[in-house]
Amino acid sequence: MHVMIIGAAGMIGRKLANKIAKTSTLGNQKMRHLSLVDVVEPSQPDGFSGDVSLHTTDASQDGRAAEFIKSRPDVIFHLASIVSGEAEVEFEKGYRINLGSTMNLLEAIRNEAATSPYKPRLVFASSVAVFGAPLPDVIGDDYHLTPLSSYGTQKAICELLLNDYSRKGFIDGVGIRLPTICIRPGLPNKAASSFFSGILREPLAGKTSILPVDDSLRHSHASPRAAIGFLIRAATMDTAFLGNWRNLNMPGHSATVRNQIDALERVAGPKTVALIQRKPDPAINAIVGGWPQTLGAERAKKLGFVAEQSFDEIIQIYIDDELGGTLPA
Amino acid sequence: MHVMIIGAAGMIGRKLANKIAKTSTLGNQKMRHLSLVDVVEPSQPDGFSGDVSLHTTDASQDGRAAEFIKSRPDVIFHLASIVSGEAEVEFEKGYRINLGSTMNLLEAIRNEAATSPYKPRLVFASSVAVFGAPLPDVIGDDYHLTPLSSYGTQKAICELLLNDYSRKGFIDGVGIRLPTICIRPGLPNKAASSFFSGILREPLAGKTSILPVDDSLRHSHASPRAAIGFLIRAATMDTAFLGNWRNLNMPGHSATVRNQIDALERVAGPKTVALIQRKPDPAINAIVGGWPQTLGAERAKKLGFVAEQSFDEIIQIYIDDELGGTLPA
Repeated sequence: MHVMIIGAAGMIGRKLANKIAKTSTLGNQKMRHLSLVDVVEPSQPDGFSGDVSLHTTDASQDGRAAEFIKSRPDVIFHLASIVSGEAEVEFEKGYRINLGSTMNLLEAIRNEAATSPYKPRLVFASSVAVFGAPLPDVIGDDYHLTPLSSYGTQKAICELLLNDYSRKGFIDGVGIRLPTICIRPGLPNKAASSFFSGILREPLAGKTSILPVDDSLRHSHASPRAAIGFLIRAATMDTAFLGNWRNLNMPGHSATVRNQIDALERVAGPKTVALIQRKPDPAINAIVGGWPQTLGAERAKKLGFVAEQSFDEIIQIYIDDELGGTLPA
Repeated sequence: MHVMIIGAAGMIGRKLANKIAKTSTLGNQKMRHLSLVDVVEPSQPDGFSGDVSLHTTDASQDGRAAEFIKSRPDVIFHLASIVSGEAEVEFEKGYRINLGSTMNLLEAIRNEAATSPYKPRLVFASSVAVFGAPLPDVIGDDYHLTPLSSYGTQKAICELLLNDYSRKGFIDGVGIRLPTICIRPGLPNKAASSFFSGILREPLAGKTSILPVDDSLRHSHASPRAAIGFLIRAATMDTAFLGNWRNLNMPGHSATVRNQIDALERVAGPKTVALIQRKPDPAINAIVGGWPQTLGAERAKKLGFVAEQSFDEIIQIYIDDELGGTLPA
């Protein structure tokens, strides 16, 4: 089996590559070839005995997708995207990368099949940002697409394309609407949601962190480890169940910012919590305030997608996976 | 005021051009310049004293929209589209024309504003095909986008773009989801919905016509005259009411095929009805069977959009507007 990750140099892309390289399997299938694609040079994953192809290329440019799709991967993870805050400010760039790269990829796959049959599984990382206010308390899988940001609009359009290309038999697509991934390792980014990780990650490292929203803001979260699990499940599940609706809400743990801070206090104590500084930001509130609070994910749960049950668990996963299992003294 | 119609050589485009040319007004505003754009040469409308510009060009080709948007129309009607049946068979053409021309137009408008402020009213002809089965009996304005055809997918994507470009202040957009237009004058076309007009128009002309679906099929209809009224209303209404949701279900008369045939019998007698030949077509049934039966259009009705109340009225409008007011002997 040949697996390709587009957006392989991003946080999720790297974790996914390392996870599947370590076992050389995807689901129950032996993986012999791993292709990593990103605009930034992807790093070689450790401990993989099969072939690795690295493509440093901008998939949003005309013709580029056709070049790397020629190798006919059986499974493609399409994770390449710029984040919500950046897509809101850089309108043209957002459409080019978040929509253009998906359109080019879909056409490259369709055109590749012109010579001989080819229909890969395509796993697309969508987002809860396809939903916008006013929203019911719980958003079901079949809730309408009502994005209130350019990022959400781009993801919603990709979802519609995924449905139509799957319906026409050009791909076997699965879109997964990821909740906010928490705790993201590394540095803060331009995502409007960046603070959800920041208010935990920075204090855990002994640094101050800014909280730009109210403590009562509720949102849905899953760990990076859960997100990798979602992607692998989406790549290996039986898609017959999906019918014409190829996009799934992912499960997540719904929590307020207050719940996050309380969990941080239980895990790391009040001195760590004291490093959080409240500084309301209207631009971030405008974007994040319109996002869903709780996602219904009944279809995904039936299909075996699993997330965390508490924020203590989410923080512990970060400590285990990123800090070697213990808090710094 | 400068008004542009893209898709001006089509049936609705021609009727709209003639209607606004005759009075030289749009709503209460004097129209001094009318630009007609189509891939087929548009015809000069009669009785207009202002300037007319004719553009024979393919708006789906790169750079073309920028050429005709340079003239900075105040109101743009974007009607250019290939029909549902054709978009289902000609996948690439459907995306190029139904989605590509809209994307090019939106970008041309956004780029035109780079030199000095420019924000036209953009009226987009969407379709009830953005909704797909399984559907509730009545589809409200806020029902989710669930297209089951490539045509419906293309229209749904254009709706999302219209929302986002309006939200960002690049256009003042209004999308109207037209019911099936009945009775279309002229020849049958490749739309899956073509027979809805055909089973009335051909018998009224003494010709046979094929009915490819069951008599019990219910659908929502409005006359070409009502459609022109919708477009003008969309061009002149106060858009503040729309908020971030720029796309409106249009009112229509919900009727079964049986209701249509009964109305035909009342207006033209049993000999005319006898010209309808039943010949089920699975491909047409597959597309049309998934379309909504009744559209809730509460938002549009509040905003003054009006359709017919009966099929007798719809047939009479055809006789008045296309047959000079009387049936052939």
